[in-house]
Amino acid sequence: MRDLSERPLTLPQRKQDAREALLQAGSELMSERDEIDIPLSDIAARASVNSALVKYYFGNKDGFLLALLDRDVGTAIRDLNLLQAGPESATRKLTTHLSGIIRVYQRYPYINRLIRGAFNRVDAEAQKEVARRVVLPIRNFYRTILEEGHRNGEFRKIDPNLFYLTTIGACDQLFSSRGVLPHLQPDVSIDELRREYTDHVVALILQGISATTSAD
Amino acid sequence: MRDLSERPLTLPQRKQDAREALLQAGSELMSERDEIDIPLSDIAARASVNSALVKYYFGNKDGFLLALLDRDVGTAIRDLNLLQAGPESATRKLTTHLSGIIRVYQRYPYINRLIRGAFNRVDAEAQKEVARRVVLPIRNFYRTILEEGHRNGEFRKIDPNLFYLTTIGACDQLFSSRGVLPHLQPDVSIDELRREYTDHVVALILQGISATTSAD
Repeated sequence: MRDLSERPLTLPQRKQDAREALLQAGSELMSERDEIDIPLSDIAARASVNSALVKYYFGNKDGFLLALLDRDVGTAIRDLNLLQAGPESATRKLTTHLSGIIRVYQRYPYINRLIRGAFNRVDAEAQKEVARRVVLPIRNFYRTILEEGHRNGEFRKIDPNLFYLTTIGACDQLFSSRGVLPHLQPDVSIDELRREYTDHVVALILQGISATTSAD
Repeated sequence: MRDLSERPLTLPQRKQDAREALLQAGSELMSERDEIDIPLSDIAARASVNSALVKYYFGNKDGFLLALLDRDVGTAIRDLNLLQAGPESATRKLTTHLSGIIRVYQRYPYINRLIRGAFNRVDAEAQKEVARRVVLPIRNFYRTILEEGHRNGEFRKIDPNLFYLTTIGACDQLFSSRGVLPHLQPDVSIDELRREYTDHVVALILQGISATTSAD
């Protein structure tokens, strides 16, 4: 799957290839156009796949968006359980997670818009699926880690829902605001900025929830 | 201007009324549809104004978006200078500002998308205008306040560009993620959540940049 981005797209030789080529084409077009509303016909054309196959593999546009979410963040979401169960401190787990989110956003800059957009555009059943597969696992991870860190004296008491919104917003903004960057900092590359941004966000959030001081 | 949202829209009696009715109609439609791409013909229809007047008042869609930005945040941006020059501590100024941003986002939930979207959709000249009128004044306010707070021993050293992105992202997410909220917290009203969110974001950011502790 991941290798697809490195090799040129050719006509798919097997069925699985066609499905993956469609997802990859959707991902590329969303990145390039900085837009999540891509006609399925454009996606089929980019993948050099008959557009009837989109319906065959994904049912409809909602099915395609869910499959793309699963491709892009499914593994990271499932890995949250491993991270949660690990022996590290809550601070260390949260640091690992936040750096990981920013990497995902860099790779798939449309991903947060896809998640947010799902709650306006797709039907109620698909919304529940997005909540179940993506939003709630992350929120539940925060709930567990924030409680653990609070118990251990690492963090002050923090509401996991508010933390979810603040954190996702702060981590995402660098990538959803790409057009603003040249006006803010004309001379810095996005890679350099990503490294600085990761350090900045992780330090701000971890110090911000730390139990060792109080705000103001 | 602000009163328009409180009284029912009627056919405009004076020219200025037609311009304001168009802006108000655009604002309402963006809020209702949770979408910033509204056809100018829909805006004219909602305002009960001949669509030729959109061109007359605003030139084109870019002109309309700039005028709407100016209507929604122009006063708040100009007030930054007053806030900056005031006698309060840097911490207090930043608290006032952050609460103000969240109020603006609640009132105009499309505003951050309008600003970000401008950097993809509008022409280069209009982009420079959005940067000049909105983005850079806020960033420059942060630069001054962060330096002042650092000098006074209130804040650790913070990059104003990174701070701009983190803060705008964190403050905005509650409003750009409205569809997610019922899944996160089914039983809480948006007003209640806004109050809690304001406290959460302000505490997190101010503790996060405080000089009195270091992260990790």
